[in-house]
Amino acid sequence: MAPPNENELFQYSLISALLDGVASTGLPVAELLSHGDHGLGTFRYMVGEMIILDGELYQMKADGTVSPIDPAAASDPPVVAPFAQVTRFEPTATTAAALASKDEVSGALARLLPGSRNHFVAVRLEGTFRSVTVRTAAGQTEPRQSVREVGRNQVSHTFEDVEGTVVGFLSPAFVEGGIGVPGIHLHFITRDRTRGGHVLALETSGEVQVRAAELTKMHVELPVGDEEFDAAPLRGDAAAVKEVEG
Amino acid sequence: MAPPNENELFQYSLISALLDGVASTGLPVAELLSHGDHGLGTFRYMVGEMIILDGELYQMKADGTVSPIDPAAASDPPVVAPFAQVTRFEPTATTAAALASKDEVSGALARLLPGSRNHFVAVRLEGTFRSVTVRTAAGQTEPRQSVREVGRNQVSHTFEDVEGTVVGFLSPAFVEGGIGVPGIHLHFITRDRTRGGHVLALETSGEVQVRAAELTKMHVELPVGDEEFDAAPLRGDAAAVKEVEG
Repeated sequence: MAPPNENELFQYSLISALLDGVASTGLPVAELLSHGDHGLGTFRYMVGEMIILDGELYQMKADGTVSPIDPAAASDPPVVAPFAQVTRFEPTATTAAALASKDEVSGALARLLPGSRNHFVAVRLEGTFRSVTVRTAAGQTEPRQSVREVGRNQVSHTFEDVEGTVVGFLSPAFVEGGIGVPGIHLHFITRDRTRGGHVLALETSGEVQVRAAELTKMHVELPVGDEEFDAAPLRGDAAAVKEVEG
Repeated sequence: MAPPNENELFQYSLISALLDGVASTGLPVAELLSHGDHGLGTFRYMVGEMIILDGELYQMKADGTVSPIDPAAASDPPVVAPFAQVTRFEPTATTAAALASKDEVSGALARLLPGSRNHFVAVRLEGTFRSVTVRTAAGQTEPRQSVREVGRNQVSHTFEDVEGTVVGFLSPAFVEGGIGVPGIHLHFITRDRTRGGHVLALETSGEVQVRAAELTKMHVELPVGDEEFDAAPLRGDAAAVKEVEG
């Protein structure tokens, strides 16, 4: 039996909270994984990029290392996500597609799931990429530093002729006020799980497998007892979101 | 035992969908009531205002009538909500307050629940009001007519020295992109359940009872298989939301 929340988007905190530098605490990853097996996010102080696939969670750091996180082992202190999006991924549509750019992912999903424009889409790409350019955030250098500032210290890297998996979400325009990232948001990890990051650009080498599911329910949990969050303006600057997550 | 979802905000559809006139279908009220016993919303074609208190659901129409809706009886065709917000209300803070205006409700809630600025608050006011001005939408005169146009046909009415109950929500700024109504959103019904509507203005007569709960989890269900919703631009015009729901 499938759990009742399959293909439901679970989100912890808000993208506008990251813009306000709210990243000193977060949801323990064990709890995050109870809500889904496919997703992305960030870590305490925005150190590195989070990717979750098949229920396995990895931290991809700016120094180029990738560490699998065992949520049971990571409990004292717990590894936390100040922001994350996950779903219990049950693909409802599959295709093979050659994609010349990150922008083409959105178009491929629109063709694969017509009528999904005002819903969320979870997506997974698998195969060989001619190139994938990723960034990995090095983290805050002081408390409450905005993800925009953090982005100035990010490391970007281009992998060529690499096998791997891209995990992410396509989000509708109405999340723009500060809740989420409108449009496509993807993280990448190599097949050998040794490198990866937030996808800035990609190009496939021939066709890759595209699996997707339309998500029509969104569950957002806001931080509780988090003074940084309580004090944050959360204005939700669309241009800033595009700059850091686009 | 309390159900697990107490004081969780459940929302069906989006305020931006109402701005785009998406109101031909909706969530059956029986299903809506399974998610909460306190809330507000609208009906098919935006005919009248919905209020839910203690699990009882009423339709308050522009002709001045108020009808209790029995969800079991209202199944063929089902009475539906194109937009609604409910919670399983378990007040965590109570006070008595004299309120000179609708704006003072937000301030009273901020004092009652400090630190709730970036969360949702469910509120219920009970007592005698010197005056309550409400509007009741007469409904769409053609399909896809925006709630802004519908508002031009609304009827407003001021009740003086009236006993009754106000039910509603205070929402944080980040819902502004098109999801919800930032700030305070209140519906009113008289104690004898014969009149009411969407609150435009209020002034209490002495103190009323204020009960409130902070909501830190939001669950949004988007319309599925609804061509109007799928085609809607959902741009989320903050000024328009304020005009119609402020």
